[in-house]
Amino acid sequence: MSKRALISVTDKSGVVEFARELNNLGYEVISTGNTFKTLKENGINAITIDEVTKFPEMLDGRVKTLNPYIHGGILFKRDNLSHVETVNEHNIGAIDLVVVNLYDFEGTLKSGKGHDIVIENIDIGGPSMIRSAAKNYKDVTVIVDVNDYDMVIEKLKNNDLNLEDRKNLAYKAFSTTARYDALISTYFAGEVGDSYPEILNLTFQKEQTLRYGENPHQNGVLYAQPNAKNPILNYEQLNGKELSFNNLNDLHGCLEVMREFKDSKEVVSVAIKHTNPCGVGLGKSTFEAYSKCYEADKVSIFGGIVGITSTVDKETAQKMNEIFLEIVVAYDYTEEALEVLRQKKNLRVLKLARIEKSLQPYDMKYLDGKLLIQDKNNALSDKCDIVTTIRPKEEQLKDMEFGMKVVKNMKSNAIAIVKEGQTLALGCGQTSRIWALKNALENNKDKDFKGAVLASDAFFPFSDCVELAHEYGIDAVVQPGGSMNDKDSIEACDKNNMTMVFTGIRHFKH
Amino acid sequence: MSKRALISVTDKSGVVEFARELNNLGYEVISTGNTFKTLKENGINAITIDEVTKFPEMLDGRVKTLNPYIHGGILFKRDNLSHVETVNEHNIGAIDLVVVNLYDFEGTLKSGKGHDIVIENIDIGGPSMIRSAAKNYKDVTVIVDVNDYDMVIEKLKNNDLNLEDRKNLAYKAFSTTARYDALISTYFAGEVGDSYPEILNLTFQKEQTLRYGENPHQNGVLYAQPNAKNPILNYEQLNGKELSFNNLNDLHGCLEVMREFKDSKEVVSVAIKHTNPCGVGLGKSTFEAYSKCYEADKVSIFGGIVGITSTVDKETAQKMNEIFLEIVVAYDYTEEALEVLRQKKNLRVLKLARIEKSLQPYDMKYLDGKLLIQDKNNALSDKCDIVTTIRPKEEQLKDMEFGMKVVKNMKSNAIAIVKEGQTLALGCGQTSRIWALKNALENNKDKDFKGAVLASDAFFPFSDCVELAHEYGIDAVVQPGGSMNDKDSIEACDKNNMTMVFTGIRHFKH
Repeated sequence: MSKRALISVTDKSGVVEFARELNNLGYEVISTGNTFKTLKENGINAITIDEVTKFPEMLDGRVKTLNPYIHGGILFKRDNLSHVETVNEHNIGAIDLVVVNLYDFEGTLKSGKGHDIVIENIDIGGPSMIRSAAKNYKDVTVIVDVNDYDMVIEKLKNNDLNLEDRKNLAYKAFSTTARYDALISTYFAGEVGDSYPEILNLTFQKEQTLRYGENPHQNGVLYAQPNAKNPILNYEQLNGKELSFNNLNDLHGCLEVMREFKDSKEVVSVAIKHTNPCGVGLGKSTFEAYSKCYEADKVSIFGGIVGITSTVDKETAQKMNEIFLEIVVAYDYTEEALEVLRQKKNLRVLKLARIEKSLQPYDMKYLDGKLLIQDKNNALSDKCDIVTTIRPKEEQLKDMEFGMKVVKNMKSNAIAIVKEGQTLALGCGQTSRIWALKNALENNKDKDFKGAVLASDAFFPFSDCVELAHEYGIDAVVQPGGSMNDKDSIEACDKNNMTMVFTGIRHFKH
Repeated sequence: MSKRALISVTDKSGVVEFARELNNLGYEVISTGNTFKTLKENGINAITIDEVTKFPEMLDGRVKTLNPYIHGGILFKRDNLSHVETVNEHNIGAIDLVVVNLYDFEGTLKSGKGHDIVIENIDIGGPSMIRSAAKNYKDVTVIVDVNDYDMVIEKLKNNDLNLEDRKNLAYKAFSTTARYDALISTYFAGEVGDSYPEILNLTFQKEQTLRYGENPHQNGVLYAQPNAKNPILNYEQLNGKELSFNNLNDLHGCLEVMREFKDSKEVVSVAIKHTNPCGVGLGKSTFEAYSKCYEADKVSIFGGIVGITSTVDKETAQKMNEIFLEIVVAYDYTEEALEVLRQKKNLRVLKLARIEKSLQPYDMKYLDGKLLIQDKNNALSDKCDIVTTIRPKEEQLKDMEFGMKVVKNMKSNAIAIVKEGQTLALGCGQTSRIWALKNALENNKDKDFKGAVLASDAFFPFSDCVELAHEYGIDAVVQPGGSMNDKDSIEACDKNNMTMVFTGIRHFKH
């Protein structure tokens, strides 16, 4: 008895050649609607699904394969006598190969079509056939990916398509239906406005197997979320080696700082090391911004990432080449700048898509089988309360905003000391707040902090930070406020002729 | 014409009462196999699926509802004249309500059943009906959760089950099928040994809506991964307020450090602040371990988390109560200790399940629409190369292991200085390695570092760390090694009569 294959595909690429090979291998091909038409027009020997189901395709194709003559033919166990008797008794022919790809729900969504069309593009029959065939993989081969046609034909020709192959194909089948319904359920979550659903289904597509993870003894892989809107890691690589796990993590940190300045009229340059900013500079030109960023901390930038929200010119590129950098990322490069940077063949040079507002609703932390999710931190401040007698000057207010944008993106506890659009001293990742400040100051003893602004990611529990800042000549402070001891810090400011602003929004980041 | 409901459930709880209410509301109930039996035995007026399909249930239940009389009845558009004509022409009766819960794939997996039984518990007909009904939610109500019975009955009685309700139910339906297939595909990934699949489907169940996220302006939610094995956040809360987002994140950090010592004969006590350890102590008793942990850094522990791999006694509890702690987590508590700790009604007291080896294959970082995944870092070292003339003493080797277990769990760049099973000085989250060391030393100027061991999470790029350590009296160093300049650090050790060990494994953590 000849084998039978059921083919019902939305993506018709390669299907004619594939079906022809099946014909040659002696397979009877059963097909549906448009697939049948395509196959027939190309001279494939095929029969319609109706001939099998003895029932018409109906309801604009909503019901065609949901039929016992199809699913019985797929699902019966070939080594179960009673199953075999049953299908014989009901004249149900075996279906040995199921080839289905689904209505393009994802593409329909992306094309921005309306709700009714999106719903119409939810495939019902397809997933059912795929799942039936995958469940019965011991007896049935299921193909959901046009890229598997050649492999399957080759193996069928050599008569060595084995159980392991069919199991792998079944695995791919269930991965595909899971992904399909994850996209649908995420679409519905958006429709009904459910940010944190009872059941959270996330689906990702492998993008790149990395050389290794955070450390050489760990494997690492980069995935993309197919339904993510406007992801920030969106660039073209113009030079250098493949990005590593740590590069990608650091790059994300760099772009998040750059995003704070996406609407700035000035150019911003950010240097990142171990995911924390180590230098940030604002300038009227790329060269000025980069110079300020570099001068901010000439030590830590070594081996780091530099991001620029503008076009890199030759002069800047030459200055960059004076030190060892892992990555340069910018909106664009002049021809000459690119030539200069390409002299270092390992330097990763990235051309970045314009940074926009984040459209991802959340951040998450995976904790060994649990997941912490939270709203993405898109705020900066919700007020500008001057709490001291002395009012900040215009340039201090500007530096307060600048400092808060930087300190928001540093690991807590964090302190940023800034002046005229440049970081002077940064302290981060500390278990105590005063330590963050001390570290910032002590690592930068050569600097003049006169007229600088101190920005803190969270409130001061005591007045010690204000007092230490004063010793170094700092006379302006910006912090969220909200401590029970706020008045101590305010008094310390007033006593020392300092100005302080409360922003109302804490920026812990861990 | 009376309405029709199709009921096919694995979980029979509440189904009889629900079906009775449907009967009372004038619904004709169609049902399958065991569900039909249960309903009939309880006096519900129901018909079998065969009466509708005009086809027998077959293949041990593998094929019963995959039939045009079912799916046509669900899927036809009630406001589409041609659809209505088609179903009338073929004598297909409308099905207005679909009530399905699926074969218990998850429970079968958890019960450790063999592969064939697991496969048999992949539901085919159920997801098909659920998806048909959800697609046609404009006309059909779908229930996948027994907890929705009451709501639906109530609304049907009041005749106000509206489009929005049906859309919400459809959303839940697709979430359920997505979750179901995510669990199946993850099972297959394990079967075929695919750690990093092309399509990665992750599914999570909401466990707790938190007061807020990392900061008060961010919403935060805790999810659990249903197929996670032996997750580390596994405790019973004995006292205090609900855990916050930051508590959970810190707690995870605390437990990961404790896990390093899971096989230790000594008790370990860990204090955590902002996810980083700020004090770790080993002791023969709980009191000794906690005392060493507390003495390690009496400042940072304030407002932190303390973890203990043993039973907390009264004496330790009293000492803990002397300072403000957010969380105490331990394997157990004596009655008296619990009484002492409960005097602070806000103190979160957690009784922890025994910490075992991690069974989660990976860690991940979500980067604004992309996902970085890597093997969980379960290694500590892969060698113990003594690279200096002077060999470490037995107690130094012990401290080297201790220091490496601590520094591995600190944010990079990180330095841990330890002595006799106690951290003396910790520096972490720094953009330069020498800064991490300087911070550790300068924040602990009162300490005596004579005889202490310095542990570094990654290699030294220069000899400056060794030289600075020597100035403070440290005479033993443990680090991965692997720098081009390793020989400089080795020479500096030899010159200063220090001993150094290379472990071969880097522990960056960001």
